[in-house]
Amino acid sequence: MGDLSELFAPTRIAVVGATERDGAIGRAIMDNLIADFDGDVVPVNPKYDELFGLQCYGDVGETDADVAIIVVPPKVVLPAMESAGEAGIENVVVITAGFGETGSEGAAREQELRDIAEKYDMNVVGPNSLGIMNTDVGMNATFGPDMALDGKMSFMSQSGAFITAVIDWANDEDIGFKDIVSLGNKAVLDEADFIEAWNDDPDTEVVIGYLEGISAGREFIDSAREVTKETPIVLVKSGKTDAGAQAASSHTGTIAGSDAAYEAGLEQAGVIRADSVQHLFDTARVLEHQPLPENKDVAVITNAGGPGVMTTDAIGESELEMADFTDETLEQFSETLPPEGNIYNPVDIVGDADNARFKDALDVALSDENVGSAIVLTAPTAILDYEQLAEDTVELQEKYGKPIAACFMGGERVDPASDLMKDAGIPNYFDPSRAVDGLEALAQYADIKQREYDEPTDFDVDRERAREILESVKERDDTRLGVEAMELLDAYGIETPHGEIVDDPGDALEVAEEIDGNVVMKIVSPDILHKSDIGGVKVGVENEDVFDAYEDLITRAKNYQPDANILGVQVQEMVDLDNGVETIVGMNRDPQFGPLMMFGLGGIFVEILEDTTFRVAPVSESEADEMTKEIDAAPMLRGARGNDPVDTEGIAETIQRLSQLVTDFPAILELDINPLVALPDGVKAVDVRLTVDPDEL
Amino acid sequence: MGDLSELFAPTRIAVVGATERDGAIGRAIMDNLIADFDGDVVPVNPKYDELFGLQCYGDVGETDADVAIIVVPPKVVLPAMESAGEAGIENVVVITAGFGETGSEGAAREQELRDIAEKYDMNVVGPNSLGIMNTDVGMNATFGPDMALDGKMSFMSQSGAFITAVIDWANDEDIGFKDIVSLGNKAVLDEADFIEAWNDDPDTEVVIGYLEGISAGREFIDSAREVTKETPIVLVKSGKTDAGAQAASSHTGTIAGSDAAYEAGLEQAGVIRADSVQHLFDTARVLEHQPLPENKDVAVITNAGGPGVMTTDAIGESELEMADFTDETLEQFSETLPPEGNIYNPVDIVGDADNARFKDALDVALSDENVGSAIVLTAPTAILDYEQLAEDTVELQEKYGKPIAACFMGGERVDPASDLMKDAGIPNYFDPSRAVDGLEALAQYADIKQREYDEPTDFDVDRERAREILESVKERDDTRLGVEAMELLDAYGIETPHGEIVDDPGDALEVAEEIDGNVVMKIVSPDILHKSDIGGVKVGVENEDVFDAYEDLITRAKNYQPDANILGVQVQEMVDLDNGVETIVGMNRDPQFGPLMMFGLGGIFVEILEDTTFRVAPVSESEADEMTKEIDAAPMLRGARGNDPVDTEGIAETIQRLSQLVTDFPAILELDINPLVALPDGVKAVDVRLTVDPDEL
Repeated sequence: MGDLSELFAPTRIAVVGATERDGAIGRAIMDNLIADFDGDVVPVNPKYDELFGLQCYGDVGETDADVAIIVVPPKVVLPAMESAGEAGIENVVVITAGFGETGSEGAAREQELRDIAEKYDMNVVGPNSLGIMNTDVGMNATFGPDMALDGKMSFMSQSGAFITAVIDWANDEDIGFKDIVSLGNKAVLDEADFIEAWNDDPDTEVVIGYLEGISAGREFIDSAREVTKETPIVLVKSGKTDAGAQAASSHTGTIAGSDAAYEAGLEQAGVIRADSVQHLFDTARVLEHQPLPENKDVAVITNAGGPGVMTTDAIGESELEMADFTDETLEQFSETLPPEGNIYNPVDIVGDADNARFKDALDVALSDENVGSAIVLTAPTAILDYEQLAEDTVELQEKYGKPIAACFMGGERVDPASDLMKDAGIPNYFDPSRAVDGLEALAQYADIKQREYDEPTDFDVDRERAREILESVKERDDTRLGVEAMELLDAYGIETPHGEIVDDPGDALEVAEEIDGNVVMKIVSPDILHKSDIGGVKVGVENEDVFDAYEDLITRAKNYQPDANILGVQVQEMVDLDNGVETIVGMNRDPQFGPLMMFGLGGIFVEILEDTTFRVAPVSESEADEMTKEIDAAPMLRGARGNDPVDTEGIAETIQRLSQLVTDFPAILELDINPLVALPDGVKAVDVRLTVDPDEL
Repeated sequence: MGDLSELFAPTRIAVVGATERDGAIGRAIMDNLIADFDGDVVPVNPKYDELFGLQCYGDVGETDADVAIIVVPPKVVLPAMESAGEAGIENVVVITAGFGETGSEGAAREQELRDIAEKYDMNVVGPNSLGIMNTDVGMNATFGPDMALDGKMSFMSQSGAFITAVIDWANDEDIGFKDIVSLGNKAVLDEADFIEAWNDDPDTEVVIGYLEGISAGREFIDSAREVTKETPIVLVKSGKTDAGAQAASSHTGTIAGSDAAYEAGLEQAGVIRADSVQHLFDTARVLEHQPLPENKDVAVITNAGGPGVMTTDAIGESELEMADFTDETLEQFSETLPPEGNIYNPVDIVGDADNARFKDALDVALSDENVGSAIVLTAPTAILDYEQLAEDTVELQEKYGKPIAACFMGGERVDPASDLMKDAGIPNYFDPSRAVDGLEALAQYADIKQREYDEPTDFDVDRERAREILESVKERDDTRLGVEAMELLDAYGIETPHGEIVDDPGDALEVAEEIDGNVVMKIVSPDILHKSDIGGVKVGVENEDVFDAYEDLITRAKNYQPDANILGVQVQEMVDLDNGVETIVGMNRDPQFGPLMMFGLGGIFVEILEDTTFRVAPVSESEADEMTKEIDAAPMLRGARGNDPVDTEGIAETIQRLSQLVTDFPAILELDINPLVALPDGVKAVDVRLTVDPDEL
């Protein structure tokens, strides 16, 4: 996508569909632009020669504008775009609704719109958008009622109504924005384009957004990773719950991906996900104004014991920790604080503390190298001047450059102090848990900023052999593959037990004799899913019994389903489950994010406890390694309860190799290695099942 | 505890330690009382004849007051109390600090205070209290800066500073209170006394509190259960996290119980636990003003799709559900709403909705019998009059008597509408998740109100035999009991595998021969904790090997620890683990709540996944039954993955019988049945370990 700086900071804007008619959208946009915009506003409407005292053009192609805002009825949007494109207007905002969100006719129209945009290499916002804003140049190219205040956040939203609500509220809260964009149907420009544009914008310090879906998940992850090294991104992604996803889908007409994919994808992208509107803005505000902490350890300085305990609880429930003070700090506190106070964190400087004692204590705490950030927490007392404390807090923040959040508890008497701190970017809340949330977001972003993303390893695999095995589904009238696809894993270097599929009892014996010890024998048929239930699996078969076992398995299968497609019998090395842990490595394909890798322990752990973890593929070594660590049952892999630790590196490598396989072959729709037995000295993929889309091969 | 109505609504209050000296607490309390109190205020100070133009008394005994507020130095508090007691003053508030919170001298003084209170049967608040308030009679008997507004909430707090902060804030938010009490050290009156008093108070509709500890857990549960049938209780109990508990303990000097006990105890008590200050007041306000819903199903009516999705998400993450409308409702919506709207929940009446459409839609939704409560959700539009919508919302709430929460999103333009709804008790929030939290609290309380608490079953047990077994620890220099205490379980009707402890190989054989099948043999010694590690357990021993096995076990034990106290060898029936599930039923004794029962699945489930559930004993049948259902792994007990369901009733009965045992014998400090093997047709306690305090026997 091209450069979007002209879209947000044009010198000449054409409004196609401008009108003076009251209540019309074309009127509202003209009013908004004329009110504040630093550049030229050009009405376009073939019915008029003049509108709002300005020369009116019959065709957008004549306007020489940088940006065209289109508000004409759906049927005339496309001709207007053609005309704009021919005239070299590269930036278009389509306000008009009646496209992809309204059924097949609209969807076809949206495709044409996309084609025109591609033909002329145009940046198109919408269709079905409220419009865009840039407070820096006074551009309110929306039909909303209010202009936003100046600020350093840029805001994108898939809901126009949410933008109007937020601006109305933010104007009263003194919260400002740099750019705002209502994404609409995202036919051309989507969230990834805007985060990239804002990363290049020196006036945007934080990107926030409300999204109901992400158009191209993997591309978004890759863009966001770059952006979040410099600019924090905080998003509400709605449709978290099944009911919410259904509502989002009926609202926007898009198929919602699974929330597991969004959760994984946003985390991999370095995006902070807010879980409510309050959380979104609390987080964005601290990220806009506060420095980042050097560590996660917080000092709490308070004149009130009870609120100190509440704050300690909130810190205990966050990713933050209560700072342990150095001996020097403790010594200073014990010299200066009254004996009924508490020199340990939370530091209780007692209810009779005056401003001097408060400032001293905060100064000592902030000077401690163990302290990454601080909370100034007070209940109102007769002796304490809140405004003075606010000034001291601001002064000490400047002195130490460490993040500070304030809880000056109280009503209107706190307002002047609160305003004073707000000007310096220090948030003040009545509820300590919100102060803690703010500091936690800073620590989270400090971690994200320091992240180093490793590239997925490119393993040396036999891709051609894998393709041949996958193509075998074309010969059969089926899309499923079972153990007959073990070779697929082999082709990608994933270790499987020794064994082969044979279609003759003599061959079965030959294979068994090559294997050390007894063997497992399984019927192989895509038509028999639950092999064990029909006695289709024999465990611990001795060589002398292999011949009979083969015949018995075939007989059982035929009795069970006479017309079953029986591919043969698998003769396989026994894997020692007693020393191993059964795990599952799986993949399904998400509509937005593509292949999504899953890892968990076998059986009850995945099925009942849902103790699983996900990553969008391709998965790097460090991501695969994290997956083996972040399930609740992870200690089971690392030698809990007196067992030997198993080969977690082998698990991580299997995840990566499988990730490479499913990335190489979009035809693989679903795949489960279940179980992948992890042993102390390696891993073995004992069984596999996959579904393939032959049309993608 | 006596009746507290006089404490909160006296006609004559004495202030012992009254003074006109600026900055003194005795001055602040006098000022506060004189300002508003409907009755007589009587200063007591031997130094003066008159204070504040009022007759001043030398001794509280002469005042004929109903309530004495004591602010004199610690050493003269007790004589003042004596004097009050002798004069028949039954209600005393001790503001003075320097008691239990300050070390052994203070603790001794607090004990004397308690003794005096008992001698005269006095209601004592504090010591170390900010004081008490009753807005109904204008009594501000605190030294805080502000009087609270009138309201229907009564508020207790273990932090005086939190009370001053809350009043300051609440006065600006128009939130009122009936009574407020600063609990102080709770030497005499504690939280249970106040909730009972407020339950009897027709002017208190909601009880809220901030607690750092609960003095007598089981008694609190029993009181609160009665109270919460009529009056909701919402508490912040701090010290949730380890760091918070430590901070609370250093703040109040009490030993914090485990949060697992508080979590279980508050839930058993029917108390709603708030997790932040915001949550506390949001919850209390809806409980004060809104009716309770008939069901958990919410209708969302909105003019904005995006916020509708957010709200649906918030409902999906709560205990509430999105209402399914009846066919009649859907028909009405499809007749009246524009085609681009959504007739399903969340109902999108589209951005161009006027007030009439909004009111109609809300009316239709509320009339639906499937709808228990509703959220009115709007983004600002040119066409919508917020005040009119507020009036319509209030009118429809009155018409249907169903709870409603509002999210009129926006800034100051919302304020008049918000004020209008506030007067009718309908809360308005910018953030939909707060509106959902409010409705969720109503649904929770509706459930609590309907609860029927069953009495714990009184099983027919052999208490004397149990006592004898427990007393065996006195004969040995040990407090631990192991498998030798299996008979203890037997005495309380908990099934154990057949078997006996023998001290002779011949006896061992005799026992083995009485048991059907092979046996398990274990060394029995309180000195050998990890029997398996030294080969002290033999599984599947055939009768012919019993003799040798006995000798071998004894030899191994002696080799391992020559001076070990070897009680013999346990010969036990083999329990069929293949068809069973290993569970753990445990108990430890919490300093506040007493015996706390634990249930979970054995091994990794408890140790690594911490998938456990707790109840304060004595546990009733329904509580024990809930315990077997609420662990994450509960489906494992109910026939997941093709296994037979196990005897969950047997598990629940074991929990109850064990609960009776540990309630009967406070000497049992800790006890674990591990494993309790649950089989399809019963349960067997295979192993037990307990710690006993011989002094309690």
